[in-house]
Amino acid sequence: MSSAAPTSVSATPAILSGKEAQAALEEELIADVARLREAGCQPALAVVRVGEDPASETYVRNKVKAAERVGMRSIHQHLPERTTQAELEAAIVALNEDPAVHGILCQLPLPRQLDAGRITRLIDPAKDVDCFHPYNVGLLTMGEPRFLPCTPAGILYLLERGGISPAGQHAVILGRSNIVGRPLSILLSHKGYDATVTVCHSRTRDLPAITRQADILIAATGIAEWVTADMVAEGAVVIDVGMNRVQDASRKTGYRLCGDVDYAAVAPKCRAITPVPGGVGPMTIAMLLRNAVTAARLLSGIGA
Amino acid sequence: MSSAAPTSVSATPAILSGKEAQAALEEELIADVARLREAGCQPALAVVRVGEDPASETYVRNKVKAAERVGMRSIHQHLPERTTQAELEAAIVALNEDPAVHGILCQLPLPRQLDAGRITRLIDPAKDVDCFHPYNVGLLTMGEPRFLPCTPAGILYLLERGGISPAGQHAVILGRSNIVGRPLSILLSHKGYDATVTVCHSRTRDLPAITRQADILIAATGIAEWVTADMVAEGAVVIDVGMNRVQDASRKTGYRLCGDVDYAAVAPKCRAITPVPGGVGPMTIAMLLRNAVTAARLLSGIGA
Repeated sequence: MSSAAPTSVSATPAILSGKEAQAALEEELIADVARLREAGCQPALAVVRVGEDPASETYVRNKVKAAERVGMRSIHQHLPERTTQAELEAAIVALNEDPAVHGILCQLPLPRQLDAGRITRLIDPAKDVDCFHPYNVGLLTMGEPRFLPCTPAGILYLLERGGISPAGQHAVILGRSNIVGRPLSILLSHKGYDATVTVCHSRTRDLPAITRQADILIAATGIAEWVTADMVAEGAVVIDVGMNRVQDASRKTGYRLCGDVDYAAVAPKCRAITPVPGGVGPMTIAMLLRNAVTAARLLSGIGA
Repeated sequence: MSSAAPTSVSATPAILSGKEAQAALEEELIADVARLREAGCQPALAVVRVGEDPASETYVRNKVKAAERVGMRSIHQHLPERTTQAELEAAIVALNEDPAVHGILCQLPLPRQLDAGRITRLIDPAKDVDCFHPYNVGLLTMGEPRFLPCTPAGILYLLERGGISPAGQHAVILGRSNIVGRPLSILLSHKGYDATVTVCHSRTRDLPAITRQADILIAATGIAEWVTADMVAEGAVVIDVGMNRVQDASRKTGYRLCGDVDYAAVAPKCRAITPVPGGVGPMTIAMLLRNAVTAARLLSGIGA
């Protein structure tokens, strides 16, 4: 070992495949759901969609399909574009009160006349499988989470599956959104994960000097291919949360999908990296289902 | 100006005095309370203490005195050491239901037989002036705070009063507690404050290399004089949250009070620094009173 060559990083980094992790997690969930059903509880996820946003339609369809794949009952409530706040609230309250429903999510964005913040707070925290309710966000912040927010939970699962412990590592997170950057920064810094965490954003000065210190770099900016090779240290783990469309005349569709990381340039420097698509994306729905299983356990009182 | 000497930092840093800031804030609060009283609302803060912990007795006495100084009504409920969970919960519920009470806090720690977590969740979030309830912690995390946790709010006030904007600055926080480090890290990284924030803790590797990058260094470790001069950059702002007793045979008491920062060695390098005592400490109670004023406004519907 003493005559080993200078440390260098392989040009073929480990690919943290969300597709494979999703399949593995769905296997676990199928077993969890089966155990709950045997014990007399049919886990059920209700998805509320309002209006005709085409992206929302796709997301909801994928969530409903995934729920059914693992043996859950799914309830898809589709309300018309002109639904009033009172009508939507009545729909949520009915689901809150229905003992056969364990998880509720309301697909965002909502049409303009509707107040998403009020809906988020109206969903019973015990059924809040998106982990968007302030009570659940507070539990998470305090280190006592009931549910984990889906995308951050998916990232933690990918790291664990890849054999990457964040303990003592410097994790640099680009983006401070309530859905990804903020809760992930809190989770990674908690006891048990124990990363040293830096949160960067649009006001951060001399960003490359910070990102180059990252053992684990998480990009959640929503800017296509924004993380370039000069921003990444040799041997870093790079998690790309982005999903952007960029024009590409060579494609039939006229566009291609890419992440927030310039994959071709960055990947050769990495110890491990998530692809886009097929990285973080597939994990989000799997984690939503895991939260629904948790909700069913807690509400039914049936153990794991 | 072109012939100015090389940039150097004065050996007399700005002292961010908590005593002066507290006095200034109490002046504001006296006016706020007077306006509420004129409008028909007598702000009232209830402090519940259980048992005979001497430090708790001092803290509660100081809180009650401060409330009275700014014209608030204070209610001090002292329950015996052997109080049961049910008895304490009944006392909290009575205060929750009393429309003449706007703020409630239960002094920690509680005797062993009592479950502090349950009490924290039982206090009406609208009266939770410590900002410990998960719902309020969640609102804070989401960037929509109702109350600000007292010590972090005091630190923000000291920075503002000292003319120190955190926007674009690298803030490094030592400590990840739910009372100081965690909520402060979230606040400083939110829009409006816009710092780039790194949270460090006992598992952080090569800590001095990180702390030396801090434009604003916040020490909340509870380890006496742990931050040494070599850990601090020239020109940094240093906020010392610590309050430690160390043996000192030269004192009549046998001890002296000090912070988490080696003040004598660090201060000459700083642009600004908080003393201990008389820095962050006095701010905490002032911010508790500010939260009580906020609670009285929200509950009474009387504007600022």
